[in-house]
Amino acid sequence: MADTLPPKRLVTVADVARAAQVSKATAARALGGYGTVSEALKQRIVETAERLDYRPNELARTMATGRSLTIGAVVGDIENPFFGLLVRGITDSAKALGFGVILANSGEDVAEERTAVAMLMAKRVDGLIVAPASMRDGAHLRDAQARGLPLVFVDREVEGLEVDAALVDDGAAARRATRLLVAAGHRRIAYLTATDAPEARFRDLSQIVLTTVLGRLSGFLDAAAAAGLEAPERFVRLNAGAPRAAQAILAELLTGADRPTAILASDSKIALEVFRAARTLGLAIPRDLSLVTFDDAEWTSALSPAVTVLAQPSYDLGGEAMRMLAERIEGRREVRRRVFDTPLIERESVAPPPILAP
Amino acid sequence: MADTLPPKRLVTVADVARAAQVSKATAARALGGYGTVSEALKQRIVETAERLDYRPNELARTMATGRSLTIGAVVGDIENPFFGLLVRGITDSAKALGFGVILANSGEDVAEERTAVAMLMAKRVDGLIVAPASMRDGAHLRDAQARGLPLVFVDREVEGLEVDAALVDDGAAARRATRLLVAAGHRRIAYLTATDAPEARFRDLSQIVLTTVLGRLSGFLDAAAAAGLEAPERFVRLNAGAPRAAQAILAELLTGADRPTAILASDSKIALEVFRAARTLGLAIPRDLSLVTFDDAEWTSALSPAVTVLAQPSYDLGGEAMRMLAERIEGRREVRRRVFDTPLIERESVAPPPILAP
Repeated sequence: MADTLPPKRLVTVADVARAAQVSKATAARALGGYGTVSEALKQRIVETAERLDYRPNELARTMATGRSLTIGAVVGDIENPFFGLLVRGITDSAKALGFGVILANSGEDVAEERTAVAMLMAKRVDGLIVAPASMRDGAHLRDAQARGLPLVFVDREVEGLEVDAALVDDGAAARRATRLLVAAGHRRIAYLTATDAPEARFRDLSQIVLTTVLGRLSGFLDAAAAAGLEAPERFVRLNAGAPRAAQAILAELLTGADRPTAILASDSKIALEVFRAARTLGLAIPRDLSLVTFDDAEWTSALSPAVTVLAQPSYDLGGEAMRMLAERIEGRREVRRRVFDTPLIERESVAPPPILAP
Repeated sequence: MADTLPPKRLVTVADVARAAQVSKATAARALGGYGTVSEALKQRIVETAERLDYRPNELARTMATGRSLTIGAVVGDIENPFFGLLVRGITDSAKALGFGVILANSGEDVAEERTAVAMLMAKRVDGLIVAPASMRDGAHLRDAQARGLPLVFVDREVEGLEVDAALVDDGAAARRATRLLVAAGHRRIAYLTATDAPEARFRDLSQIVLTTVLGRLSGFLDAAAAAGLEAPERFVRLNAGAPRAAQAILAELLTGADRPTAILASDSKIALEVFRAARTLGLAIPRDLSLVTFDDAEWTSALSPAVTVLAQPSYDLGGEAMRMLAERIEGRREVRRRVFDTPLIERESVAPPPILAP
């Protein structure tokens, strides 16, 4: 293929100054809209700039005004449809408010999140939206806030940090789903979450580093205890994020003598793995196994059986976080938390438990 | 809730210079790593900077070096799992290469793409990755290239522009899927695509503005003609991107006397709508209707029936586009196109056609 043409050089303020026969400082004042320049001179400089197709350098403007009109967003896993829709909410809202968005993915790893925050601060973003990867390890976020960087949390929070946040009521959602399964007759309900931990088996809540997971798990255990379920914590499994790990967990859970008759999945990627495991093991949903999942992912309502879901408002969460951030950049001082409801949408994946061998 | 503390001012080069008792120019040279400063002086300045917790202002560095180490990416629809994974490929590869990514969503609209490109250029990105929303309307991209901005196309191209590109062989993929359906006995095969057009009905290829759609549709029509199918273009439908539009199209197609017995869907969002319509109309896949779709979305292999797919390498496409862009930023001049293969993965959604009433 042919080589490209040699690149044209970008037109600078110096080029405009030379062509308009003024000093560079005068040209910069006229084009940057600061300092004093006579109207006649300003008009001559602006016309010259237009003739040369000069484009203002937004970086230079940032250095003069302290605003970049760019915000940073750090999310856990952009591939997860929950975050895909949340990011769409952020970018749509940012565009309406005149901001660009630099997106970074933490992969749910605090070290990566720390690197991303440093990168974004070095780029002089006007503010940050973060879904923190750990509620315990937030020194870098505390530091960013202390330096005066406008900060909003989305979906999750960091313990002890007073930061604007757009959240959902995870505890209420988990209680609602658990009660639905109990009402259908289930007494052995498993709860699967993607949260990282040294092992899949759940010991106690001190293992949990995400406020969302803590809220959901507490809600699940509370509702299970209130319904008199026996040792519900024995059916809780962590580390179900990677498909292979989820399959190992499900094979262990679903082939035991004491197998659960229903599963509550903490995201739609895990719910897909429940379907995959059920296929492999020859279990029909909901006849042999009931399922409720967090997130109204598109596939949950299109296929058979349609899945009963906790419909997190992920698009609205992103949009609200961006609006909160814009207000904080504009100078709002009061810290606000907006907690969204998570409706339960009943479809076809919950049935009474099968009669199991003792 | 309590107010936050007043923000700390960011430490500047001037602050470091004052504390180290050197001129601002000397401090800037020592901290920016350009010009000449004695080792002893440099050490004193760097230590002072560390003591004051000075953070280099990347914008200032950009103005000095002309590099921002940030690239822009403009994709069609971040919610579509194809682009979700492609963006993950871009950001993973960018991180490995030391670049940050500013993400923008065109919503498959050329005007929005034009705005996004202007915004990204004003932010002085080092280069752009674009999945162009139209192969015909690329003046803004031609202009960006002429100004010397490194540019790489991903997934699609613009007619007449010689630009690095990471693509898939869409024609070969569509031919492969069509032959599979013909081999199963189908003679009435519908092709559904999300591409925007004034109406859903297909007249001729001049309606198509995306190189991917053009490639696929040509491949489908070629393979159909080669197999002697009668007027295959009568089953082509555009505008199937929005769920409601897809449902209207499918209701019309699947309830007619001359109904197709198989569908080739141009993305996994459309394939979901095929499942939704089949549920509504009481058609079983594959007994009553066969289905092949572009994109190996996660749900396609987890549920029953598992779906036969054309597995586009979306993650690799994104990663390769980023590597190409980094090489161009480093000064490579030769224009390259990398075309990926799209394997067909056979699962359970294709069967012989049902015997239909004449």
